[in-house]
Amino acid sequence: MENKDDLYPMRHSLAHIMAAAIRRQHEEVKLGIGPVVEHGFYYDIDLDNKKLSETDFPAIEEEMRKIISEDQPFERNMKSIEEAVNWSKESNQPYKEELLNDLKRAGTTVAKDLSPDEFGTITEGNTLVDEVSFYTNGDFTDLCRGPHVSSTKKVGAFKLMRIAGAYWRSKEGNPQMQRIYGVAFATQKELEEYMSMLEEAKKRDHRKLGQELDLFIFSEMVGSGLPLFTPRGTVLREELTAFSNELRQSKGFSKVWVPHMTKSDLYKASGHWDKFGDELFLVKSQETSDELVLKPMNCPHHTRIYASKQRSYRDLPIRYLETTTIYRDEKTGELGGLNRVRSATQDDSHVFCRPDQIEDEIRSLLESARELYEAVGMSLRVRLSYRDESNAYLGSEELWQRAQQQLKSAVESNSLEYFEMNGEAAFYGPKIDFMVTDAIGREHQLATVQLDFVQPERFGLFYIDTDGSEQQPVMIHCALLGSIERFLSVYIEHTAGKFPVWVAPEQVRVASVNQEEKTLEFVAEILSKAQKLGLRIGCDNNNESVGKKIRLAENMKVPYTIVIGEKEIETGEVTPRIRKDMEVQSPSSISIDNFFQTVANEAKSRVSKSSL
Amino acid sequence: MENKDDLYPMRHSLAHIMAAAIRRQHEEVKLGIGPVVEHGFYYDIDLDNKKLSETDFPAIEEEMRKIISEDQPFERNMKSIEEAVNWSKESNQPYKEELLNDLKRAGTTVAKDLSPDEFGTITEGNTLVDEVSFYTNGDFTDLCRGPHVSSTKKVGAFKLMRIAGAYWRSKEGNPQMQRIYGVAFATQKELEEYMSMLEEAKKRDHRKLGQELDLFIFSEMVGSGLPLFTPRGTVLREELTAFSNELRQSKGFSKVWVPHMTKSDLYKASGHWDKFGDELFLVKSQETSDELVLKPMNCPHHTRIYASKQRSYRDLPIRYLETTTIYRDEKTGELGGLNRVRSATQDDSHVFCRPDQIEDEIRSLLESARELYEAVGMSLRVRLSYRDESNAYLGSEELWQRAQQQLKSAVESNSLEYFEMNGEAAFYGPKIDFMVTDAIGREHQLATVQLDFVQPERFGLFYIDTDGSEQQPVMIHCALLGSIERFLSVYIEHTAGKFPVWVAPEQVRVASVNQEEKTLEFVAEILSKAQKLGLRIGCDNNNESVGKKIRLAENMKVPYTIVIGEKEIETGEVTPRIRKDMEVQSPSSISIDNFFQTVANEAKSRVSKSSL
Repeated sequence: MENKDDLYPMRHSLAHIMAAAIRRQHEEVKLGIGPVVEHGFYYDIDLDNKKLSETDFPAIEEEMRKIISEDQPFERNMKSIEEAVNWSKESNQPYKEELLNDLKRAGTTVAKDLSPDEFGTITEGNTLVDEVSFYTNGDFTDLCRGPHVSSTKKVGAFKLMRIAGAYWRSKEGNPQMQRIYGVAFATQKELEEYMSMLEEAKKRDHRKLGQELDLFIFSEMVGSGLPLFTPRGTVLREELTAFSNELRQSKGFSKVWVPHMTKSDLYKASGHWDKFGDELFLVKSQETSDELVLKPMNCPHHTRIYASKQRSYRDLPIRYLETTTIYRDEKTGELGGLNRVRSATQDDSHVFCRPDQIEDEIRSLLESARELYEAVGMSLRVRLSYRDESNAYLGSEELWQRAQQQLKSAVESNSLEYFEMNGEAAFYGPKIDFMVTDAIGREHQLATVQLDFVQPERFGLFYIDTDGSEQQPVMIHCALLGSIERFLSVYIEHTAGKFPVWVAPEQVRVASVNQEEKTLEFVAEILSKAQKLGLRIGCDNNNESVGKKIRLAENMKVPYTIVIGEKEIETGEVTPRIRKDMEVQSPSSISIDNFFQTVANEAKSRVSKSSL
Repeated sequence: MENKDDLYPMRHSLAHIMAAAIRRQHEEVKLGIGPVVEHGFYYDIDLDNKKLSETDFPAIEEEMRKIISEDQPFERNMKSIEEAVNWSKESNQPYKEELLNDLKRAGTTVAKDLSPDEFGTITEGNTLVDEVSFYTNGDFTDLCRGPHVSSTKKVGAFKLMRIAGAYWRSKEGNPQMQRIYGVAFATQKELEEYMSMLEEAKKRDHRKLGQELDLFIFSEMVGSGLPLFTPRGTVLREELTAFSNELRQSKGFSKVWVPHMTKSDLYKASGHWDKFGDELFLVKSQETSDELVLKPMNCPHHTRIYASKQRSYRDLPIRYLETTTIYRDEKTGELGGLNRVRSATQDDSHVFCRPDQIEDEIRSLLESARELYEAVGMSLRVRLSYRDESNAYLGSEELWQRAQQQLKSAVESNSLEYFEMNGEAAFYGPKIDFMVTDAIGREHQLATVQLDFVQPERFGLFYIDTDGSEQQPVMIHCALLGSIERFLSVYIEHTAGKFPVWVAPEQVRVASVNQEEKTLEFVAEILSKAQKLGLRIGCDNNNESVGKKIRLAENMKVPYTIVIGEKEIETGEVTPRIRKDMEVQSPSSISIDNFFQTVANEAKSRVSKSSL
């Protein structure tokens, strides 16, 4: 929920207004919960067997606008739990009644699976709730924590978006409700911008582009959440991870390789066995009684390599790098395209260092991150997640304070935009999250730099210090792209499939004007030249018009297309067609050799604009 | 069993002679089976509670030599099964009795888990055996198919090697026998050569070198058969697979990427579900009821990518390349070092082509194989495995004949040494096996080119032919290295860890003469220069003598070591120490820049000798 302070009351008030409008049309409606979500709100309603659809939206919106124009004030009042339960019975609101009863019975514990928005008085600690707040606008009253705008007129611009089935309290077996989503913004202009952003996002949907540009596929026989990458999609994976690796290898990281499965002993030692629980894929050996598991992360394996030799303070930092796949059994309902998959490849790395080396290591990783995100044209800001005052953290407070200071100092020396959040650290160490903004303004959290004081402890890792004593190293986990699949889901939409030359699966396409032997020979000759320069070059020698060939290349978003006919064979010069986004005005005539060399240089320097 | 024709009767006769010798010393001995194996023979014996050990070997060998000098002729005679069973009872040979009874009862079926050597008359088809042959030398008679040498004097040179426990008929729960192994050769000289080869092999044992050179580790917590590769070992993996990939990418192969697990549906469709049986690792999803499995091979996945689009005759050949890991649940007893592992990485590739394209594709793959094995300095010969006259093969006979002809023609045009074997093809297509000979004369079968007429059929793959009809493509499976782990187990022993510069984890080591600031600065400067050239350079700035530093570098088998002191800083020249196997007489003085550039060029051109 972004801009919570500004838009929250407005969006939450719209949820009430929508519920009130639906009740005007369907008196019998039973209400579930109606929280604020990203960009808007929803309300879960139960109309027995009556099914609403998007065709009902105009009428509901009309009624909402009526309520808004009535300028009804939102009034807060408190009831004791008993009164509240009575109210829910009288108003025939069994779902509210259930919530209230749970709340009454269990104090805080019930709050976990519910939005806190539902409660007048949020349950704190183990204090039992005795009063809850209600909000009334016009003749509509709802159990609600608030806050709300002062009157229905102050809700800005909104639009109902979609309707979907949802189990009451998200539990299978519970009654199925209808969830109506709306979006809301302060002004009509912002709403319209959001709507055109959505329109644009739809065009760029990576699942759609993945198919159109032949990047990846899913197969029924292989299963959901398990994408297969075609040659074109594999180029994306390879180029991006090669860059990510290069950025770290130049800073002293060495590649390692670990198997994708392990005895569960490893995760019992690391603590991940409990942490990942149901998300672990268990592996059954038919030959042995080994209890095996697919790795949900790589750090425990990497500690085994660290621990395979005695390390001295002089050997540190030791830096391991590995692009490797982890396995998490995500709920099938949550799988979609590349955004969430069951086997995700990370450009993972682990540093084992002394506490006094943290800052240098983080600085160097942030440098790499900055360079990478500049190259892919996404603006980067970082969130610094610190511990709070509670006792929920492992490792000495002094170590934490020193480490947090080093994190911040490394961020500042990289001139990165940042914000700090207390209480957002993992229990095992503070961290830095990379937040990137894509071409249509959406922010994504992709990768992380995470300090870890706990794995070294659990695995008993040590190094011999100057004085001969055994000291514990700190671990730093870092993936720059994060999961390559998830990164691609963002990057394909960010670029709308118009990849810069260094990433483009096909960098140059050659379209022949005819199929004469002389032409085909010449084409074969220049293809071979281009391949020697390492260019990814495609060729269209089919019996089609040049116009059609150019359109096909455009559809595949190939950066450069050159046409080969009589004239080009004679002069050895071409007039490359350049993809529009690459910001070159008019293509000029250029010798083929020179053209290929220029494109190869562009790829090598990883620029996104054409240098022709 | 190599040289079967020459050495087989000799080795098999020695098994009898050993059994006879043991019976002279232990009258009560009960004999199991005594077949010929690679380089020699063994016999399984049962002495009740009496345990033999290697200290008993001299006495047994002595007795064997006596029998040999007695020049006893081997005499063959036939008995009916009934007579044979009576003989085994009278001679108190219950294991022989069991074999004979099984043979009598079941005809051919029993022969499957036994060496055919055990039977006088081999069971053919479903014909029941009615007579079996025996061989007698001196007072020793044994059930035996033969053939044998004419007399005990003609057995060449032999040596008993080791003794190990073995279950009768390899079945757990059966009586435990003592298996005594011997080796045998035609001459004493050959035996001695073999013994020194073994001595040399022991020194080169890749498990020993893997530890000494810090290449890979095993971890109790991770499990057996699951090696983890350290930074140094990962360089070997990366360099070798990069070369293998490069060789094919330059020939039109494109990388693809597939997940390591799949629903079992895929392998049910491909037929591997039945084929791999117990060797499959089953994966249990806790979130879904999906029946998942770790991939034991990659071809079924790759067919999914082929099938994701309609293909035309013009699109073929389509060539996919992927270095990826497969999982096979090998029996724990068979796991050892890198030779046999439970997760093996293949440099795998699949071609989908028209039948008329087979020869060109095979020729191109063989070219790559030849280039690769030349670079690693191993001589290559190939085995062509064809079908026989039986009906055990899928695909039309015409297709087979044409394909076999194309395989042979491709092998000949690559001037490869080859031999042909009828009846050795897989049921789904003919194949080419790469047999490589290592530096100490051992031959290994590493990689394969395998034609496949069946997967395209099972998956209904097709392409649209010139006439618009749907035609079935042929698949060609090919891994050049095979399993990278197994390849490394051979390659580490082949090189004895003295890797050529292009493979060496550490190509150059810098040893500083002192720890003065000036020296350390200069060293840092040249390290950075070397890294910019892509060199893998190590540095020893420790407070030790230069002599010790050089010894340490030698122990790690670093190709080049340079010492940096006063003089080198002043002149900018070094006198590189060159690893002895790299065939350079006396190291000359050379400027550091020039030296680095020379080493970088050596690495790039993948030569194995120094060019200094």
